[in-house]
Amino acid sequence: MSAIHPAVPVMPAAARPPLKSLDDALAELLGHATALTETQPVPTLDADARVLAQDVVSALQVPPQDNSAMDGYAVRCADLTASVALPVSQRIPAGSGGSALAPMSVARIFTGAPIPAGADAVVMQEDCTVQADKGVLVNAPVQPGHWIRRSGEDITQGTVILSKGERLTPASLGLAASIGMNVLNVVRRPRVALFSTGDELVMPGDVPPEQMPLGAIYNSNRFFLQALLKRLGCEVSDLGIVPDNRAATIAALRAAAQNHDLILTSGGVSVGEEDHIKPAVQALGHLDLWQVAMKPGKPFVYGWVGQGDAPPGSDAAAAGAHFIGLPGNPVSSFVTFLLMVRPFLLKLQGSHTFALQSIAAQADFTWARGDQRREFLRVRRNAAGALELFPNQSAGVLTSVAWGDGLVDNPPGRTIAPGDVVRFISFAEVLS
Amino acid sequence: MSAIHPAVPVMPAAARPPLKSLDDALAELLGHATALTETQPVPTLDADARVLAQDVVSALQVPPQDNSAMDGYAVRCADLTASVALPVSQRIPAGSGGSALAPMSVARIFTGAPIPAGADAVVMQEDCTVQADKGVLVNAPVQPGHWIRRSGEDITQGTVILSKGERLTPASLGLAASIGMNVLNVVRRPRVALFSTGDELVMPGDVPPEQMPLGAIYNSNRFFLQALLKRLGCEVSDLGIVPDNRAATIAALRAAAQNHDLILTSGGVSVGEEDHIKPAVQALGHLDLWQVAMKPGKPFVYGWVGQGDAPPGSDAAAAGAHFIGLPGNPVSSFVTFLLMVRPFLLKLQGSHTFALQSIAAQADFTWARGDQRREFLRVRRNAAGALELFPNQSAGVLTSVAWGDGLVDNPPGRTIAPGDVVRFISFAEVLS
Repeated sequence: MSAIHPAVPVMPAAARPPLKSLDDALAELLGHATALTETQPVPTLDADARVLAQDVVSALQVPPQDNSAMDGYAVRCADLTASVALPVSQRIPAGSGGSALAPMSVARIFTGAPIPAGADAVVMQEDCTVQADKGVLVNAPVQPGHWIRRSGEDITQGTVILSKGERLTPASLGLAASIGMNVLNVVRRPRVALFSTGDELVMPGDVPPEQMPLGAIYNSNRFFLQALLKRLGCEVSDLGIVPDNRAATIAALRAAAQNHDLILTSGGVSVGEEDHIKPAVQALGHLDLWQVAMKPGKPFVYGWVGQGDAPPGSDAAAAGAHFIGLPGNPVSSFVTFLLMVRPFLLKLQGSHTFALQSIAAQADFTWARGDQRREFLRVRRNAAGALELFPNQSAGVLTSVAWGDGLVDNPPGRTIAPGDVVRFISFAEVLS
Repeated sequence: MSAIHPAVPVMPAAARPPLKSLDDALAELLGHATALTETQPVPTLDADARVLAQDVVSALQVPPQDNSAMDGYAVRCADLTASVALPVSQRIPAGSGGSALAPMSVARIFTGAPIPAGADAVVMQEDCTVQADKGVLVNAPVQPGHWIRRSGEDITQGTVILSKGERLTPASLGLAASIGMNVLNVVRRPRVALFSTGDELVMPGDVPPEQMPLGAIYNSNRFFLQALLKRLGCEVSDLGIVPDNRAATIAALRAAAQNHDLILTSGGVSVGEEDHIKPAVQALGHLDLWQVAMKPGKPFVYGWVGQGDAPPGSDAAAAGAHFIGLPGNPVSSFVTFLLMVRPFLLKLQGSHTFALQSIAAQADFTWARGDQRREFLRVRRNAAGALELFPNQSAGVLTSVAWGDGLVDNPPGRTIAPGDVVRFISFAEVLS
C-alpha cells in the first residue's frame, strides 16, 4: 500500500487534550456505570461470583439448638463432684433430639447432636473411661458450657447475613445454604460485545505462523479480554473484525447496542489514528477520547452508542450501550482493563466493592527513572516475598504480564531502589 | 431415638493416633497425587485456568518486524540535521509493508506498522509540524532507535513461552494467541464425586426453615465445596446422600470409583464417629485417619477406593479413586480444603505451583491465647491494610469465612498483639 492519502491532521502540541489523572478518569467513567436493574433467581449452587440483588435475611438460628461440638458424653457438671462412673441413660446421634437428661446419668452424644435438657456440658470421649456394667467415668475437669455450641452462635434469626451488592464467593454460597436458601436473586450478567479493529490483525488458526504476511500480527488482545470478561461474570459476544467501511460499521455498532450493555474494543484509539469506529460511535451517540496520565495505557475512549436517528421516545431510541475503547498495545490493554473496565463492570452489576486493592511490599529491583505519568510496572514475588521486575517494561511485551503476578503502582517521577516499600497490586486479587 | 445401642468403643488416650504436622500431612497427601496423564486439545479461547500439558514454543518473532511504537513519521536521523521540512514519500499503515525510505524524505507511519528499510527512528506526530506543500518539520531532537519496537522484543523464535505444568491465565492465553496458537494441549479436568453424610443434613429447598425438624441442619458444605472444586477446574458429580447401610454404601463408592479421580466427603471422620463410609472404603481399598495439628480442621481422612474383590489384573481391579474425608464443621471443611485438597487437585492436574502463598501483614487485633496447634484465624483487611479478626473463631461459624478475606497462619502457642507482623493468606490468592 504505497499511495499517499491525505494525512490525518496532526494536532499541534497546544491543542492536545490535557492529561487526566487515573483517579479522575476512573471517577468519570464510574459516573456512567448505572447499575443494571434486571435481576434473576439462580440456584445457590450456580451463583458463585454473581452479585446479589437482595439482602439475605435468616429465618432461623444457626445452629438451631445448643449442640455438641464433640463426640462424647453430655453431662450435668453438678453430678461429677464424686469420681464415680455414671450410667449412660440415652444416646443422641446428630439429627435426632434427646429427652431430658436423668439425674446422675450421662448421655452418649455425637458432634452436632442437640444437648438434652438438663445437661450443661459435654465431655470429649477421649477424657472418659467406659467401665463395663458401671458406666462412664470422667477423667478431666469439666466446666458448664464445655464443648457446647450455642444456638445462634453463627447466625441469629432476623440477621442480614449477606447484603445486596455483595459479590458471592464459595463461602457466601455455603452461608446462604446454611439458612436454607437454595435460590438467590442476583443481577443479570452484563452482556459485552467484543470488537476487533486493525488491518494488521490475524486470528490465530486462520494463518499459520510461517505464512504470516509482512506487517501482520496475531490478535492476542481478544483472547485475554474474553477471559477477563468471563471471570467478571459477563456474557461475551465476539463480533469479530469490524467491516472496513463507515456505513457497515455504523450498522454493526447499532445492532450490537440493542443487545449489549457494553461494546469493548482495543486499538484504534490514539490521537489521529485512522479507524471507522470513532466516527461511527459519534454518529450514533457520543465519544470522548481521554489521555490518562498512566503508563502503560494513555489513550482511553469512553462513549455511548445509541440509535442515531431513531424517533425520539421509540424503543429503538432508548436502546444503547456503553462504548469503551482500550489502547491497542497488549500490556496497555490488559492494564487499563484491570484498572478501569473491571471496576466499571462490577459497578454495572451493582457491586459496591470495586476499588483497587494494593498492599505494601518490598522492591527487589532498581527503577532509575520515574516517568512523568503514574506507572504500573510488571513484577513477580520471589520466594522471600519481595518483588522482582520484568526486565522489559515496554507496552508491547505481553510476556511481562504472563510472567508477572502483579503490578507496582508507582507515583509519577518516583525512582525505586532495592528494599524500598512500594504499592503492589496482585493479579489474583483482581482476577477472581 | 432413645434406644441405647452399644457405644462405639472409646479410644483410650494412650492409643490416640499421634498428631501429624500440617506440613507432614500435606507432603504425605501430595505423595499420593500422581498427575493425570490424559490430555486434550482445547481452543485457546476456552483454556483459562487449565493446566498446560505441553511446552509452548514460538515459531515466530513477536513482533515479527521492527515496527513503530507511535503514530508519527519514520525518519533517517542523519536527514534531520538541518531544520527543514521533508516531504512525505510514503504512507505505512499497520498491517502493510512500506518500501525503502527515499533519502531526505519521511514516511507517514502508524502504530504497529513495519519500519521501512533505511529509516532508523520514528518521531511522534505531536513533535512535528506539517507545512502545506513542503512536508513535515521535526521539532524535537531524535535519536536512532526512538519509538521503534524491535523484532522479537517480546518473543524470539524458538523460545519456550509457556511450560508444561503451568496453569493458564488470561494473560498466558493472550501470549499463546500472540504466536498463533489457537489450540492448546491441556490436562483433562479432574473428575470429583461429592458425597454427603450425616442424618442431620437437609438440602436447602427440600424443607423450608420453619419446618426443620429438631436437630436437623442445612447442608452448607456441599455448596462451597462444589464452588471451590469448579474454580479449580474440576468436573463435579454430586452423588447426594449416601444410602444408610453398608452394602449400598460399598456399591455406591465402587461405582463412583470407576468414573472419578477423587471421592470427596465431609463429616463423619472424627475418631469413633459412626458412619458407613469408613468401613466401606476399607472394604474396597484402604483408609488412613490422620489427626493433623491444625485448628480448625484436626481430623482428615485419606484413602483409596478400589474394586475390592475384582479379579487381579482385570480392568475393574485397576479402576479406583482417591478418597478424601474432610471434617464436618463448615470452617474446618473450608480451611482443610484450601490447605490440603486444593494443592492435591492442582498436583493431580500436573501443576507445579501449589505451595501455600502467604505474605507479611500487620495485625490490628489481640489474640491472647495461642493454641497448641497451628491456627488459621479468619481475618479481614481494613482500609489501612491491617488485619481485623472475626470475633467468633469457632469452627462452626461459617460467617467468619464469608466475612473474611483471608487467614492468619499462626504458629502453635503464639499470641498476637496489635501491630505484630503475622503471615496472611489471602482468599483471592487461593480461590482463583
